Amino acid sequence: MTIDTAVFDLSDAHTTAMHELYRHLHAHPELSMQETHTAAFILEKLTHLGLETFMCGGTGVVGILRNGDGPVVGYRADTDGLPMQEDTGLDYASTSTGTLADGTAVPVMHGCGHDTHITVGLTAAQLLTEHREAWAGTVVFIFQPGEEIGKGAEAMVEDGLWDKAPKPSIIYGQHVWPGLAGTVNISKGTAMAMADSWRVTVHGRQAHGSQPEQSIDPIVLGAHMVVRIQTIVSREVHPMKSAVVTIGTFHGGLKENIIPASAEFTLNVRTFDPEVRDRVLASLRRIISAEAAASGAPEPTIEEITSFPQCYNDPASTTDLMAVLGEVLGEDAVIEAPPVMGSEDFGLLAEAIGVPSVYWFFGGHAQDTLDAGTPPGNHSPFFAPVIEPTLTTGVRAAMTAVLSTVGTTA
Amino acid sequence: MTIDTAVFDLSDAHTTAMHELYRHLHAHPELSMQETHTAAFILEKLTHLGLETFMCGGTGVVGILRNGDGPVVGYRADTDGLPMQEDTGLDYASTSTGTLADGTAVPVMHGCGHDTHITVGLTAAQLLTEHREAWAGTVVFIFQPGEEIGKGAEAMVEDGLWDKAPKPSIIYGQHVWPGLAGTVNISKGTAMAMADSWRVTVHGRQAHGSQPEQSIDPIVLGAHMVVRIQTIVSREVHPMKSAVVTIGTFHGGLKENIIPASAEFTLNVRTFDPEVRDRVLASLRRIISAEAAASGAPEPTIEEITSFPQCYNDPASTTDLMAVLGEVLGEDAVIEAPPVMGSEDFGLLAEAIGVPSVYWFFGGHAQDTLDAGTPPGNHSPFFAPVIEPTLTTGVRAAMTAVLSTVGTTA
Amino acid sequence: MTIDTAVFDLSDAHTTAMHELYRHLHAHPELSMQETHTAAFILEKLTHLGLETFMCGGTGVVGILRNGDGPVVGYRADTDGLPMQEDTGLDYASTSTGTLADGTAVPVMHGCGHDTHITVGLTAAQLLTEHREAWAGTVVFIFQPGEEIGKGAEAMVEDGLWDKAPKPSIIYGQHVWPGLAGTVNISKGTAMAMADSWRVTVHGRQAHGSQPEQSIDPIVLGAHMVVRIQTIVSREVHPMKSAVVTIGTFHGGLKENIIPASAEFTLNVRTFDPEVRDRVLASLRRIISAEAAASGAPEPTIEEITSFPQCYNDPASTTDLMAVLGEVLGEDAVIEAPPVMGSEDFGLLAEAIGVPSVYWFFGGHAQDTLDAGTPPGNHSPFFAPVIEPTLTTGVRAAMTAVLSTVGTTA
Amino acid sequence: MTIDTAVFDLSDAHTTAMHELYRHLHAHPELSMQETHTAAFILEKLTHLGLETFMCGGTGVVGILRNGDGPVVGYRADTDGLPMQEDTGLDYASTSTGTLADGTAVPVMHGCGHDTHITVGLTAAQLLTEHREAWAGTVVFIFQPGEEIGKGAEAMVEDGLWDKAPKPSIIYGQHVWPGLAGTVNISKGTAMAMADSWRVTVHGRQAHGSQPEQSIDPIVLGAHMVVRIQTIVSREVHPMKSAVVTIGTFHGGLKENIIPASAEFTLNVRTFDPEVRDRVLASLRRIISAEAAASGAPEPTIEEITSFPQCYNDPASTTDLMAVLGEVLGEDAVIEAPPVMGSEDFGLLAEAIGVPSVYWFFGGHAQDTLDAGTPPGNHSPFFAPVIEPTLTTGVRAAMTAVLSTVGTTA
Repeated sequence: MTIDTAVFDLSDAHTTAMHELYRHLHAHPELSMQETHTAAFILEKLTHLGLETFMCGGTGVVGILRNGDGPVVGYRADTDGLPMQEDTGLDYASTSTGTLADGTAVPVMHGCGHDTHITVGLTAAQLLTEHREAWAGTVVFIFQPGEEIGKGAEAMVEDGLWDKAPKPSIIYGQHVWPGLAGTVNISKGTAMAMADSWRVTVHGRQAHGSQPEQSIDPIVLGAHMVVRIQTIVSREVHPMKSAVVTIGTFHGGLKENIIPASAEFTLNVRTFDPEVRDRVLASLRRIISAEAAASGAPEPTIEEITSFPQCYNDPASTTDLMAVLGEVLGEDAVIEAPPVMGSEDFGLLAEAIGVPSVYWFFGGHAQDTLDAGTPPGNHSPFFAPVIEPTLTTGVRAAMTAVLSTVGTTA
Repeated sequence: MTIDTAVFDLSDAHTTAMHELYRHLHAHPELSMQETHTAAFILEKLTHLGLETFMCGGTGVVGILRNGDGPVVGYRADTDGLPMQEDTGLDYASTSTGTLADGTAVPVMHGCGHDTHITVGLTAAQLLTEHREAWAGTVVFIFQPGEEIGKGAEAMVEDGLWDKAPKPSIIYGQHVWPGLAGTVNISKGTAMAMADSWRVTVHGRQAHGSQPEQSIDPIVLGAHMVVRIQTIVSREVHPMKSAVVTIGTFHGGLKENIIPASAEFTLNVRTFDPEVRDRVLASLRRIISAEAAASGAPEPTIEEITSFPQCYNDPASTTDLMAVLGEVLGEDAVIEAPPVMGSEDFGLLAEAIGVPSVYWFFGGHAQDTLDAGTPPGNHSPFFAPVIEPTLTTGVRAAMTAVLSTVGTTA
Repeated sequence: MTIDTAVFDLSDAHTTAMHELYRHLHAHPELSMQETHTAAFILEKLTHLGLETFMCGGTGVVGILRNGDGPVVGYRADTDGLPMQEDTGLDYASTSTGTLADGTAVPVMHGCGHDTHITVGLTAAQLLTEHREAWAGTVVFIFQPGEEIGKGAEAMVEDGLWDKAPKPSIIYGQHVWPGLAGTVNISKGTAMAMADSWRVTVHGRQAHGSQPEQSIDPIVLGAHMVVRIQTIVSREVHPMKSAVVTIGTFHGGLKENIIPASAEFTLNVRTFDPEVRDRVLASLRRIISAEAAASGAPEPTIEEITSFPQCYNDPASTTDLMAVLGEVLGEDAVIEAPPVMGSEDFGLLAEAIGVPSVYWFFGGHAQDTLDAGTPPGNHSPFFAPVIEPTLTTGVRAAMTAVLSTVGTTA
Repeated sequence: MTIDTAVFDLSDAHTTAMHELYRHLHAHPELSMQETHTAAFILEKLTHLGLETFMCGGTGVVGILRNGDGPVVGYRADTDGLPMQEDTGLDYASTSTGTLADGTAVPVMHGCGHDTHITVGLTAAQLLTEHREAWAGTVVFIFQPGEEIGKGAEAMVEDGLWDKAPKPSIIYGQHVWPGLAGTVNISKGTAMAMADSWRVTVHGRQAHGSQPEQSIDPIVLGAHMVVRIQTIVSREVHPMKSAVVTIGTFHGGLKENIIPASAEFTLNVRTFDPEVRDRVLASLRRIISAEAAASGAPEPTIEEITSFPQCYNDPASTTDLMAVLGEVLGEDAVIEAPPVMGSEDFGLLAEAIGVPSVYWFFGGHAQDTLDAGTPPGNHSPFFAPVIEPTLTTGVRAAMTAVLSTVGTTA
C-alpha cells in the first residue's frame, strides 16, 4: 500500500499550534491517575474537533472519529507525568507539583515524554478531521492515564472502554525514546518485557540478639530467600530465553542486638515469554513459601505492586507497517530492533478484545546530542526531546499507521 | 575471714538519707556520657565525706578514701540512664529528657537501675569514713559514666584513671537485677559475655533492575554474607563453647526495580572466651571480605559500634568473697550462677592494670513480684526495684567485699 | 561407705591369667554383631565360674551371679572390634579378618579397647565368685555386642534382656581411653553425647547439562540443604548448649555435563540434651523437606543409620561412686571431667528399665607415652593400652562400683 | 553463483561403493584419539585417489587435492566413535571394543554419526578428482580425530596442520543430526555453543565430625560454591544472552561422622558469545577462589577437562552458501535455524588461521521415523541414520560448499 503523504503534511500554522500545545503540556504534567487537567484539556480539544468523546477509567479520555463505512482502528497515547524534579532548564519546564498517596507533595515532570504522545495524538486527530476525503472508517483515540504505574489501561478496560467504543481491528501506539529524531525503532513479535513487582513480608519471631533459639530470624530467612531465588534464572529458565529477577530492596531490623519480628523485600521480574513468566512467578511463590517453612516461620505475605502485561507486535501487521513507514519516513529511518527490557501496559488494550497491536519507538534526540554520548534517557531529570523533527515524525508515523488501516480512499 | 557486720549496720537516719538520695537520683537520670549533673552531685557528696576526688573520662568521678597503710581496693558504680520513657507510675519517676547525638530530644529513665548503684556506692563510702577504725588501707570509688554504650570504662582508663588513683589489688562491682531482693547471684570465672557490635556497609554498583549484568548487586551480596556468617557458629566454634552472631538489621534499596549501590547491616557478637571471640571476629572479617571478593565488589566498610570486654570473676577471689557474703547475707542468699549473655564494660577497669575483679548481681524484686511471673527486667519501662531490702543488701554486699580486702582491723 | 579392698586384690596367678586372657582377646577381634567366637569364649568362662548364662541379642552374653538376698547391680562390657588394620607391632596383634555387609573382606582390630572391657568384666566376675562372703545380692554381667554401630544394646533389650535377667537398681560400665593408666575420668550428669546418623537421598530430575530447565538439579538442591542446615546450630540451639551437625559425605553425579537424577548425603548429629536433640532432628527434617519443596522436588528419603542414646550419669550415684573410687584408687586418680562428644549405646540398657547408670573412663597410657605428645587414641591403628596398671585399675574400678552397691557385708 | 550439479552426480557404482564404505566404517568405530585403523583406512583411500597426504595430530589425516591455480578451500570430517554399546540391531552394527584411559575395556559405537562424515568426505574427494575440469584451486581435506573429547582440532593445529597444508580462505564442515534426510539446517553467525568443563578440587582440613572447629569443612565450602555460582547466570549475564553453568558432579567424604579433607566437583559451561564466556569463566574463578578464602581454606585446584571453541558461521559466507545450497537441494531443504547448545571443536581449525568457516547439519532420518515421535538422537544407542538420501545429500552439500569456493570453471 502507498500512502498519499500529502494527507498529513503540516502547514506552518499547524506546526506552530502543535509546538504551543506541546510546550503547554510539558509545563503542566500531572501524576498517574490524577491527570484531571490534562484530561479536561484533551477532552476539550477532541470535542472541538467534532469527535464523540467520553471519559473512561477515571482520567482517561476516548475520542471517536467516525468517517463512514470502513475499518475501525485504535490509536493510544498515554498522558501521565512522573514525581520528579525537572532539571532541563527549558523555558517551558514544569513547575507543577502533585501529591503522593501518602500525602507527600512532590514536583512533577513529563520525564517520560508522554507530553509528546498527547501532542502527536491530538495533531493526528486534527489532520484526520481535516482530510476526511482521504480515508473511510472509524478511528478510536485512546488517551490513557496511569501508564507509569501500570494501572491506566486496566482501569479503562474495566470501566467498559470496549463496551462504549467500537472495537478496532488493530491498535497502534508509540513512545518517544533517546534515539535519533526522525527515525523509528520497531520489533516484530515481542516488543517489550512483561514486568511484575511484588512486596514480600517475611514474618519471623522477635527475640533478643543473645537468644536466637527463641526467635525465628527473619533476616536470616530473608537472606536465604534472596539466595534461593537466584536458582530460578540459573536453573529454571531455558538458557535461550530471558528472565530477570531483581530484589531491589530488603529492609529489616532496628538495632543490631535485637532479632526483629519481620523483614520486607520487594522484587521485580522481567520476562518476554508468558510461559517463562508463569514459571518464574510460580517458582518465586514456591521458594518464598518453602523457605519460610524451612525456618518454621509463618507463610510470608506477598502483595502485587504492579504487573505490566506483554507488549507484542503482531508480526504480519508489523511487517506491513514497516513497509509503509519506510516509504513515508525513508528506508533508513525505520529500524528493526530487538525487544527491550522496559515495560508498558499498552498491550492490555488489544489483549482485552483479542485484536493485534503494534507499538514502536520514535527518536527524540538530535544527532549531535547522540554524538556527545550518554544522551539523557526517559526518566532522567534532563530528558528533553528536541521538538523537531521529533513531533512531526511522531505525527507522520501515527498517520501512516492509522491510514495504512483505514485509507487511503484516494 | 569474718567481717564484723556492726561496721555497716545502718541507722534509721542512714536509711532515710539513703532512700532520699535514691529517689533523687531516680528522678534525675542522664544519658550516657552526658551525666553532668549526676557527676556534680556525686563529686559534692564524696568531697563532703572528705575523700580526695577528681573528674575522669568526662563525666566520671573518682573518690579516694585513704585510711593508713594497707591494701588498696577498688569499687565501681556506673551512673548513666537510658533513652526511654519511664512507665512505673512511681511518684519519684523520671521526668528528665536528654538529647541524642543526632539532636533528637528523648525522655530519659534509670531503666537499668544504675541509680541504685550510685546510692549504694555513696552509702558505702559514708560508712567507711564513719568506721575508719574498722579497716586500714585505701578504697578507690569509681563512679563510671557511659556503661550502656560501652564507652565509660575505656574513657576513664584513657584519661589516666590509674595514673591518678592508686592501683587496687582487686576491684569489685555489682548490678541490680530482677532476682529476689536480699540475695546475690555470682559466677566463678566468666561472669558476663563479651559483646561486639559492628556496622557493615556493603558496596556494590547501582543499575536498573533489568540490567543486573551492569550491577554489583549489594542485596544479593549481603544476603550471601548473612548466610555464610552462619557457618562461624555452626562450624568454627567448639561445640562446648558459646558464641552468638546476630545480624539485627539489614537495609538496602529504595525501589523494587533499581539495584541499589549499597546495603548495610549491623551485627552483634556474644562470646565468653577471648579465644572464641578472636576467632569469631576474625572469621567475620574474613567472610565479609571474601564474599565481597566473590561478587567482585569493593572491600566492605566495617565500623565498630560498641565492644564490651570480658567480665571475668577471678575464681579464688570469688570463692573467698562468696564465703564471707554467705556469712553476712546468709548461706541461702548467695547463689552460684552460670554466666549470663549480657555484657558490661566493668572488666576493663581491672584488665587495664592486670588485677583481678569480681562482679555480682543483687536482687531487686520482692517475692510476690517474682511469684506473679515475668517481673519487669532491666531496660523495661516498668523496671522499679523495691527499695528495701534491695539497697541495704547492696550496701552490705559492697561493704563485705571492700572489707574482705582491707579489714577488719578489729 | 568404705570398701574392703582386700576383696579385689589380685594374686600373681590372677594377674597372669588376666594378661593371657587379654592377649588372646586382643589377637582375635570380631566385627560388630558377628562376635561369635568372642561370645562363645565369654559364655564358656562365665559358665565355668558358675554363673547362670544366656545368649541375648544375637552375640550378646549375660551372666547372672546370685549371692543371696540383696541389691541387684548390672555391669556391662562391650565386645566388638573394628574393621581396621592393626599397626601396633605387638606380638599379640590381631591377624583376624571379617566380612562386611557388602561382602568385602577386611582386617579386624580391637582398636577401641573392648578387649580390655571383656577382660576386666570376666576378672571381676571371677573375684566376686571367689569372695561371696564379702557381698550379698545379685550381679548381672552384660557382655554386649555391636557397640560400634550402636546396635547391640538395642538388640539385647529387644531380645528380652530384662525379662530374662533380674532388673538391677543401677548399671555400671567403663571404657578405656588415652588417659593416664591408673586414673579414671568421670562426669556428673551427661557423660557422652547422643549421636544420630542419617542418610539423605535427594531426588531430582535428570537432564542434559545444557537443559537445566528440564531438570530438578539435585546437586544445587543438596547444596542448599547443606547451607541451610548450618542455621540449626547457629540460630536454633541455645548458645550455652551444645550441638554439632556434620555432613560427612555428599555424593552425586557421574559426568560434568549431565545433571543427575539424585544425590546423597550423610550426616551426624551430636547433642547432650534430649530437648536439643529433638529440636535439631526435627529442624533437620523440616529443612530437608522444605528445601526439596523449594526446588519443586519430591520428598527426600531419610534413613537412620545409627542412633546412640544419651549416656547420663546419675549425679547422686556418681558423687557416691567418686567418693569410694577416691578411697580405692587415690583422690588424685579420680578426676571429674566435662562430658565428651563421643557416643555410646550403654545408656540404653538402663533407660530401658528406668534405672540410673554410671559410666566412666579408665586410662590406658603410661606417663611417658602421654609426655611424648599425641598418644594414639581409640580407633587409631596404633592404639595399644599399656597392660598395667590399665587392667588392674579397670578391675578395681569395676569391683568398687559393684561392691558399692551390693557389699560389703564385712 | 550457479553450480553445475552434473559435477557431483553419483553413478550406481559410486553409490554402491559409498554405501559399502559407510557400512564398513560403521562396523569398525574407534575411540577418540585412538582412531588408528580408521586413519590408516582414510590415508589409503586418499593416497589411492592421488591426493598428497600426511598424518597430523596423532590419528588425524590430511589430504591435499591440488588442481591448478585458484582458491584454497578446507573441508573437515571428524572420525571418532563413542564408548557405548550399539543397540540398533543393524546387520552392520559395531562389534568393536576399545580401552579407556583407566584401562577399562568398553564397547565402541559410531553413535554420533562420524562414519557418515568420513564417507561423505571420501566420496567428495573422489568426485573432485574425477571432475578436475570443473574447478581450479586446491582442496584440503581434514579428517580430524578426537572431536568427542574436544582434543582433535587442537592436536592437529598444534602438530603444524597449517604449516604443512596450504591455508584455505574458508573451511566447511557438516554434521548428521536427527532432522529430515535430504534437508540441511544452518545458522548465520553463532552456530553452536562454546563448552568448557572443569574439575574443581576443594581443599579443606579433616577432623572428626564432633570437632568442626578443628576442620575446614570442604562439603560446607563446596556447597557454598555451588550456591554462589548460581549468581553468575542470574546476575552477571545479560538477560538477553545465553549461559548455562551446570555442576554435574559433587563428591566428598567417606563416612557421616568424619569431616573429609577435600571434596571435588565438576562443571560445564555453555555460552555463545565469547565475551559472555570470558566473564562466566572469570567469575567462576573469582567465586571459587573467594569462597575458599571465606572458609580460610587453601586455594582450590581447577583443572580444565575440555574446552570446545566457538562454532561461528561467517554471516556473509553463510548467506552465499545458503543461496547455492537452495539451488542444489531445493529452497525448502535449506532451513535457517537458531544456534544449538551442543558444542564442536571444528571452529578451532579456522580460528587458528583467522579465516571464516561455515558449519551445518544434514538430516539423517526418514519422514516416518520423525512422524513416529522422538527419533533417536546423536549419542543414542539406537542412532542409525537412514543411508539414503542421507549420504547423497551430505555429498551434494559438501560438493556445493567446496565448488562454491573453487569452481566452477565451466
